[in-house]
Amino acid sequence: MQVISSVQDMQRLADSIRRSGKRIGVVPTMGYLHDGHLSLIRIARQHSDTVVTTIFVNPTQFAPDEDFKRYPRDLQRDLGLCESVGTDVVFAPDVASIYPNGYKTFIDVEKVTRMLEGKSRPSHFRGVATIVAKLFNIVKPHVAVFGQKDAQQAVVIKQMAKDLDFDVEIIIGPTVREPDGLAMSSRNAYLSSEERGDAVVLSESLRAAGELILSGEPDCGRIIKAMHSLIKAKPTVKIDYISVADALTLEELHELRKGDRVLISLAVWFGRTRLIDNSILAIQ
Amino acid sequence: MQVISSVQDMQRLADSIRRSGKRIGVVPTMGYLHDGHLSLIRIARQHSDTVVTTIFVNPTQFAPDEDFKRYPRDLQRDLGLCESVGTDVVFAPDVASIYPNGYKTFIDVEKVTRMLEGKSRPSHFRGVATIVAKLFNIVKPHVAVFGQKDAQQAVVIKQMAKDLDFDVEIIIGPTVREPDGLAMSSRNAYLSSEERGDAVVLSESLRAAGELILSGEPDCGRIIKAMHSLIKAKPTVKIDYISVADALTLEELHELRKGDRVLISLAVWFGRTRLIDNSILAIQ
Repeated sequence: MQVISSVQDMQRLADSIRRSGKRIGVVPTMGYLHDGHLSLIRIARQHSDTVVTTIFVNPTQFAPDEDFKRYPRDLQRDLGLCESVGTDVVFAPDVASIYPNGYKTFIDVEKVTRMLEGKSRPSHFRGVATIVAKLFNIVKPHVAVFGQKDAQQAVVIKQMAKDLDFDVEIIIGPTVREPDGLAMSSRNAYLSSEERGDAVVLSESLRAAGELILSGEPDCGRIIKAMHSLIKAKPTVKIDYISVADALTLEELHELRKGDRVLISLAVWFGRTRLIDNSILAIQ
Repeated sequence: MQVISSVQDMQRLADSIRRSGKRIGVVPTMGYLHDGHLSLIRIARQHSDTVVTTIFVNPTQFAPDEDFKRYPRDLQRDLGLCESVGTDVVFAPDVASIYPNGYKTFIDVEKVTRMLEGKSRPSHFRGVATIVAKLFNIVKPHVAVFGQKDAQQAVVIKQMAKDLDFDVEIIIGPTVREPDGLAMSSRNAYLSSEERGDAVVLSESLRAAGELILSGEPDCGRIIKAMHSLIKAKPTVKIDYISVADALTLEELHELRKGDRVLISLAVWFGRTRLIDNSILAIQ
């Protein structure tokens, strides 16, 4: 496994891989890898000859009051995990080579970045779209794999790649969960044991919503209210949002109809830690 | 010479050219080609094995009150000119394949897009940066050639390409002028004969500014005033701006110093037609 930190070295390697007719798959990550990331690397492995995992905690997707500085980092451990699941190249640049002095360019995806996470974190997706475009230009992948846990991010990246004509196939891998249902996230490391106990309510409330819908409940207000009650019962929580939206446009739905593809998503604070989760359901 | 209108066909061709180890050069244009464009195609020819000229009148770089609809177009004539100077591939897509329904993504380059042209045309460079990024992803060039006539555009594109890690060498070709000094522009076709006569004052005022600077004048206010007087003497004109700025940051200068690289630029209306011109001087 090669470890590369220079943008130019990565581009030269990508050129030579492409010229040899091999397919490049990339899994962009912020490191502190967990089984969710590793599942994405395995998916990339199935769709390409050379798998590049990128490890970069991207400052432009954090607001000044967010957790950029304390975001967990452990490159040595990450390198071992990357190698264990068949990564060929780790691209792990430093901040100064990605955002040198005088950096000025940002990518804005309209509409789908404005709601949900975008409402709570107004500059977040501008940072996400920008770093993903940069990584596409550096790694030159044929295919890129992202996780469904960041559902809105998946929508934004697909839209950006399509709109800017990036010749990259975007694959979204399913969310990987702990045995009790908590979605894997690097931020789970922040949780106290009480918060960790409470956090299971994220997936519990999504499951409850799914059961309500399966039983024929069409009223999104009632679905949200049921989730709200479940979550509020936990002592450490503060709800940021609970949403039932169209899975493609991310616009809020009021009443479910047959044929809808619905994204149920939520963001909840457990003490100082903000976690998100979601599920996508087809209404039948 | 091949003529391609489909994004996917262009990407597949670009892939096969690159895999064969050949270099692709691109000259992005809005068509209605003149000797200025042809000089850029010749430069691309010198720096690549396969020259792609793109012809696309880009709606997102025009404001609603600007001349998108009446911008001159003549594809048949353009194709003949392209072939005459050694273009291998013309990429000429329609608007719907570049901006399909639901298009949402735009690229913003901060600071250098806000002054000069950007002040008069606030969304112009957002459209320029976006279409150039898209064309880079479609044509996959090793080198791209733009004209010095659009001096600020050259600065914006270089910044965008560097910031987003596009692996594309940007070459800026010199302005080509009519015998009387008027910079070639597709918009010159709009001019009445009186306006065409007056328009020579653009290059005359730039030459006068250069002579003042050569004679040792350090005061940018006085340089601008001298240009202003020359231009105002013409009956059909309305001055938009005259600027003496740092050639890299585009920030206005007040006093010239040894070692400065200075962009003298101006935009002037001749009747309903807005023309721009510029020169870059090194202060010695």
